[in-house]
Amino acid sequence: MRRRLLATALSLAIAPAAASEGMWMPSQLPDLAPQLKAAGFEGDPAALADLTRPPLNAVVKVGGATGAFVSKDGLVLTNHHVAFGVIQYNSKPERDLIAGGFVANSRAEELPANPDYRVLVTTGFDRITDRILAGAKGKTGRAYYDAVDAATKAAVAECEREAGYRCSVANMYYGTDFYLIRQLELRDIRLVYAPPAGIGNYGDEVDNFMWPRHSGDFTVLRAYVGRDGKPADYSADNVPYNPPAHLQVSTRHVGEGDFAMLAGYPGVTFRHRMASEFEQQIGWQLPSRVALSQSMIDTIGKAATTPEARVLYAAQVQSLKNTLKRAQGELDGLRRSDAAKAREADEAQMLAWLAKQPSAKATRNDIAAVQRLLDQASAMRERDQLLGMIRSQTQLLRAALTVQRLAHERAKPDAERETGYQQRDETLITGQLKQVQRRYDPAVEKALLADLLSQYQALPAAQHVAEFDAVFGTTAEETRAKLDALYAGTKLGDDAVRLAAMGRDAAALKADADPLLQAAAALMPAVMRLEDEAKVRDGELLRLRPSYMRALIAYRQSQGRAVYPDANSTLRVSYGNLKGMSPRDGVNYVPVTTVGGIVEKHTGEAPFDAPAPLRAAIAKGDFGTTADPSIKTQTVNILTDLDTTGGNSGSPVLDAEGKLIALNFDSNWESVSASWKYDPNYKRAIHVDMRYMRWLMAKVYPAPQLLAEMGLPAE
Amino acid sequence: MRRRLLATALSLAIAPAAASEGMWMPSQLPDLAPQLKAAGFEGDPAALADLTRPPLNAVVKVGGATGAFVSKDGLVLTNHHVAFGVIQYNSKPERDLIAGGFVANSRAEELPANPDYRVLVTTGFDRITDRILAGAKGKTGRAYYDAVDAATKAAVAECEREAGYRCSVANMYYGTDFYLIRQLELRDIRLVYAPPAGIGNYGDEVDNFMWPRHSGDFTVLRAYVGRDGKPADYSADNVPYNPPAHLQVSTRHVGEGDFAMLAGYPGVTFRHRMASEFEQQIGWQLPSRVALSQSMIDTIGKAATTPEARVLYAAQVQSLKNTLKRAQGELDGLRRSDAAKAREADEAQMLAWLAKQPSAKATRNDIAAVQRLLDQASAMRERDQLLGMIRSQTQLLRAALTVQRLAHERAKPDAERETGYQQRDETLITGQLKQVQRRYDPAVEKALLADLLSQYQALPAAQHVAEFDAVFGTTAEETRAKLDALYAGTKLGDDAVRLAAMGRDAAALKADADPLLQAAAALMPAVMRLEDEAKVRDGELLRLRPSYMRALIAYRQSQGRAVYPDANSTLRVSYGNLKGMSPRDGVNYVPVTTVGGIVEKHTGEAPFDAPAPLRAAIAKGDFGTTADPSIKTQTVNILTDLDTTGGNSGSPVLDAEGKLIALNFDSNWESVSASWKYDPNYKRAIHVDMRYMRWLMAKVYPAPQLLAEMGLPAE
Repeated sequence: MRRRLLATALSLAIAPAAASEGMWMPSQLPDLAPQLKAAGFEGDPAALADLTRPPLNAVVKVGGATGAFVSKDGLVLTNHHVAFGVIQYNSKPERDLIAGGFVANSRAEELPANPDYRVLVTTGFDRITDRILAGAKGKTGRAYYDAVDAATKAAVAECEREAGYRCSVANMYYGTDFYLIRQLELRDIRLVYAPPAGIGNYGDEVDNFMWPRHSGDFTVLRAYVGRDGKPADYSADNVPYNPPAHLQVSTRHVGEGDFAMLAGYPGVTFRHRMASEFEQQIGWQLPSRVALSQSMIDTIGKAATTPEARVLYAAQVQSLKNTLKRAQGELDGLRRSDAAKAREADEAQMLAWLAKQPSAKATRNDIAAVQRLLDQASAMRERDQLLGMIRSQTQLLRAALTVQRLAHERAKPDAERETGYQQRDETLITGQLKQVQRRYDPAVEKALLADLLSQYQALPAAQHVAEFDAVFGTTAEETRAKLDALYAGTKLGDDAVRLAAMGRDAAALKADADPLLQAAAALMPAVMRLEDEAKVRDGELLRLRPSYMRALIAYRQSQGRAVYPDANSTLRVSYGNLKGMSPRDGVNYVPVTTVGGIVEKHTGEAPFDAPAPLRAAIAKGDFGTTADPSIKTQTVNILTDLDTTGGNSGSPVLDAEGKLIALNFDSNWESVSASWKYDPNYKRAIHVDMRYMRWLMAKVYPAPQLLAEMGLPAE
Repeated sequence: MRRRLLATALSLAIAPAAASEGMWMPSQLPDLAPQLKAAGFEGDPAALADLTRPPLNAVVKVGGATGAFVSKDGLVLTNHHVAFGVIQYNSKPERDLIAGGFVANSRAEELPANPDYRVLVTTGFDRITDRILAGAKGKTGRAYYDAVDAATKAAVAECEREAGYRCSVANMYYGTDFYLIRQLELRDIRLVYAPPAGIGNYGDEVDNFMWPRHSGDFTVLRAYVGRDGKPADYSADNVPYNPPAHLQVSTRHVGEGDFAMLAGYPGVTFRHRMASEFEQQIGWQLPSRVALSQSMIDTIGKAATTPEARVLYAAQVQSLKNTLKRAQGELDGLRRSDAAKAREADEAQMLAWLAKQPSAKATRNDIAAVQRLLDQASAMRERDQLLGMIRSQTQLLRAALTVQRLAHERAKPDAERETGYQQRDETLITGQLKQVQRRYDPAVEKALLADLLSQYQALPAAQHVAEFDAVFGTTAEETRAKLDALYAGTKLGDDAVRLAAMGRDAAALKADADPLLQAAAALMPAVMRLEDEAKVRDGELLRLRPSYMRALIAYRQSQGRAVYPDANSTLRVSYGNLKGMSPRDGVNYVPVTTVGGIVEKHTGEAPFDAPAPLRAAIAKGDFGTTADPSIKTQTVNILTDLDTTGGNSGSPVLDAEGKLIALNFDSNWESVSASWKYDPNYKRAIHVDMRYMRWLMAKVYPAPQLLAEMGLPAE
């Protein structure tokens, strides 16, 4: 009895701040065994420690997101929206797979994906911190950055020498640790089963980020390899790939409170940033992003006076609106969670603890140095934000800068060129330059520049950049005259002229009298200088942030708590429970939705156009073994408190036995701020229930052969 | 044990169809004792049987809605929106009681209401069916109607002979029973306590019909009488009225599942209408109301081409939009509840049961006769709907018809004039004629008439009316020409001309050449004829419907169930429980809201502009004894499944002990169809929690003297 009490006390002591917070590296899971058990996990946490061994190596990267093998013959389950390109690629006017869905009744009927579609199977994950940092030792700033970069490129190149593999280096804890990741690259992927968009994308943009949700957002693919078992391009002779492991779809029922665990590739989070960075994000970054996006939307609205101009800028306005909405949502969420204050208090406690440690002084010095670097950047933040917009939100000016930069980079050996301007990037650049035609109106671009430049001119002198002042002037009047001259004189609005410019070297461009090319040339030294300053700072941050992270890890350890690295697109595991939430006073969300909700939402028009066979099957009410016995109807989506972010699309969700119960596909709107702070009251992830998939395959768009292959009952 | 089982079986047998359905006459409550106990009532149902004795005679009519005495010195509690006229009447630019609220710190500070504001205390409720029907015996049609009307008027006149009383006759079960209601009419009402509109009307139109709700929709008044204890006009010498009973505000906490009981004056319901009437309401009445409202909104939108015309018609368009929205909501609800099918099945069962009863034949004949009358009316329903709109949705034509009708009625003794055209109505008519100026544009009125008349002309010949055809023509072309002539020639658009016409007799009007007055004169015989036909039908329905109702009551009795009369603005009691609901798949409403929701909704702009003292008090979290101990915060509104409809505003909600826990003030949107069908899944009533009122009086806008007078703790 006493022993038991102690165990309970211990498990409380080492619980993370919020029960389900954490995007854990698999290697951390054995240490979290008590928490996993407490949450309801029935398996052995030690079996989850290695992401290159079963079951975690059944989790794969698919089309930039996540998926999982679900049969020994290479069936891969991912989201409908992750496989959407594959479905679209195979759609024809006479056979619209988007609208109608697709069922391959035999392997011969499976349709090849677009040739660039990939499934990546992780086969290696090795800590190479010493190797990466060996050359950086003793260096600072840009040199430190370049040494890490060079070591990274060398490690990747060596690893990729074996054909069929793609390699990368992951930076954990902001430069504290580096891992070499080795992935088998499967290139022959085929479409096996896709529900109609009226199921797979039910609710579309209207329901995006929303709960309650009713989407069958899943698709089944199959990976093929050559007869030698090795990755190969598509060939009719290829054979199904036999993965080293696959997940078993569960036939157990789950409901509120049940254990859930998710494995996937979350993209980026900022949870362990410093308190001052939280303060800047909430106090300046997000509000200023909202204000600047609104200002650009207004400027385009006023300047685009013709229907043609409005069409040209529709996509840009939509993108600015999305940016604004998301920034506002993140801001609202971080304020609601009082994230800055919480992080500040936490950091203050850590620093107080640190002061009592032997190594306190060196660490404190490093942390102070990080803060000075952040302060340096903050001193120029308004300028950097505006110059960033001037480069990213214009079409012709951006094209001129790109052309000049490319000419500059081309003078170097390809391997030394800046990322984004290497030989392999030129196709993409050509595409961008061609697209200008469909997104450019001179009056609107001038108005946007005038707006951004007037804000820039209002900044204190310390934030001014001589080259920009020279090219655009320092008063509204000068700017207007200079913009008029630039856009009246340039020929870059002409598709052919712009693309021809891309092919020329720096000398030829220098001789070109086009005023916008000349302006870009005049701005280029400033662009390069600011970029270099940023790299110096990034190098120093890469060198110094690990001190902060090590202090944080040690401090948490002193409390019996572990620290997961911020997300960086590597495989992570999070665990928690099926859980409802209260979005506002008086309202509770139930964590399981049912087919009744599909009928409630159905209007007959997209995005709420449920296919007739689905509606007929719901009306019939014949749900078989897939109906939840406690609510006596067919479930559709489930809600958990699992810790996810962008990149977790398609992540398999496992039950207490490690069996597949759902596929992650979205989050609720209240959790857009979770990239900075996990708030247990509001952070939720939205998944498609495997029982819904099984029912669709059993009763609505039958695929008995797939159910059999996955070892599932026929109905 | 056996006894107990029997009792349970019995109470199940006599339970009404839906647990909380029923707007019961107090006299029915003793028979419902088992159900009341089962729902949680702890008092003696027999004590609720007489609405002229305590506690039910504490429930009063206030300003057309409901309220209750809450102290022995005449304090009356009702809704903020029910007392709004009183607050407005006392507001001055320098002292805005709407925005700022009002607290009388002593009786001397209490402010007199507008002189026409009334509180009515019921002192008599007597069944006088025999007296009302004595003269109608053997008569049919119009004669039956007139006999009932004459007996009603005589009973009212006799009852009102005693000064200070207002009397009326209530028709229960569609002519089956008649009751004489005698009410003491208190005329000196004063404003005692009103929260600011930012509390009393928090959420306003945005939250109207919505849950979750956060409104402090209450106001405290006090009734005064002369020194002789009798009703009197306002005088500084008057003294507080000592009511025969008052309710005690509860200090017990309530939560989900707890018993609740409500007493008030529901206006009108149609629950016991025949199956064919349900079918017509759902199949024709509501869809055609939606379509016709939309058509008139569109017509006004197109015809009102100037900003001035749009202002003139803004109120009418808003009213049409409300009509449309409400009709659509009612239609959606009745379809969701499958109301027509349910009523049809129920009626079929009743008729099957009836066939086996001794008196079946006479009753069946009467029911068949009712159906024939309804069919007769249905045969002309499109015409009647359109002619109704022609009369109600025009301004100048309506004025001309009113002037002609008034001249016609004035030729009779006042007592014999049609209701609405008696001497006491003339002030109202003058007001309406004056208002035309602010709501009339000839182009819009002509367009509306052209629209309505073109729909009328498309009806089958059997629905045509000779007088309308003669005045407006029978083709679109004729109509256009005739309308042009009418509106070009009329002088009724002139305020003075129109008001002068009102003073003239039939002969003088006949001599007037104004084309619109002439047109109205030509239409008048048709208007009178159709009205007379309707009265003949109404008389027959009044005579025959009781057969249907008696059959229904007997059939329900055979099942051990009671039948409440459809609502008719008389005092009714409903009982049920605090209960959440699921408005849609995946969402549950909690039946209690809290002050946290006020902060969540607060935007700083009306209607979500919570006053600073309220926000400060919420932030401080000092809730005292009024905080709910189970949720540890201050509650605001509660949700019950009580059976209510329009007219129930201000109804007191009592707990299991009969103490006052809340004031009713609204319903949820899903229950707009409840006037026809009570659906236990969707019918809810919204109340302001008395704990919120107590907290506001204790901590936010203090009124310790009122808490003391109501026998409540100081905090």
